[in-house]
Amino acid sequence: MNISIDEAKIVASKLNYRHERGTVIAVLQDAETKEVLMVGNMDKEALILTLTTGLVHLWSLSRERIWLKGETSGHYQVVQDFKVDCDEDAVLLLVKSQGPVCHTGNHTCFYRNSKFFLEHK
Amino acid sequence: MNISIDEAKIVASKLNYRHERGTVIAVLQDAETKEVLMVGNMDKEALILTLTTGLVHLWSLSRERIWLKGETSGHYQVVQDFKVDCDEDAVLLLVKSQGPVCHTGNHTCFYRNSKFFLEHK
Repeated sequence: MNISIDEAKIVASKLNYRHERGTVIAVLQDAETKEVLMVGNMDKEALILTLTTGLVHLWSLSRERIWLKGETSGHYQVVQDFKVDCDEDAVLLLVKSQGPVCHTGNHTCFYRNSKFFLEHK
Repeated sequence: MNISIDEAKIVASKLNYRHERGTVIAVLQDAETKEVLMVGNMDKEALILTLTTGLVHLWSLSRERIWLKGETSGHYQVVQDFKVDCDEDAVLLLVKSQGPVCHTGNHTCFYRNSKFFLEHK
């Protein structure tokens, strides 16, 4: 999906950027397998870029800048659907991945369970 | 799932509580339908309570206290599986809901899309 800049601005104006550095929490979910892939932050500009280009953009808390997901790896995350939560401070992006979302090469960043941590104390 | 207090403390010690008020981000996903249900925050104590009781506990940023999800509604969220992301600042909880997760009565907090906001300017 991608929508016009005017529409994106309307949607973006409805959210509550109450999290760190004026952001909402963004959850990426594989549109097909429904796997949760990663969690990040989006400021208003990242959200508008995401909605208008159809490619996930995030606000990097560590680098303190807008970050096109896949800008170095080429593993862009293409938005298929977009949802907003009840108090408008989190968004859910259903995506089609053009490569692993995780810098480790795993399809999802959530690739370890509690057993892993108990076996690797 | 629920694990011993000693195991929970080991797992909890591995996480990076770098988000607001010393928390990790917690994503709740329906273990059966794979719907993403809500996003919240967990401090170390909430995480240990979640892992040992098998019921989702969160840190409420607005109320500034530990919050057993369902404590007033009775809609407890029973943990079936638990995952940690690559940089250990977010967790994913696969849950079986004992009632709607959202205070609006919807099964998921993510019940609105961009179209909703464009039709309700």
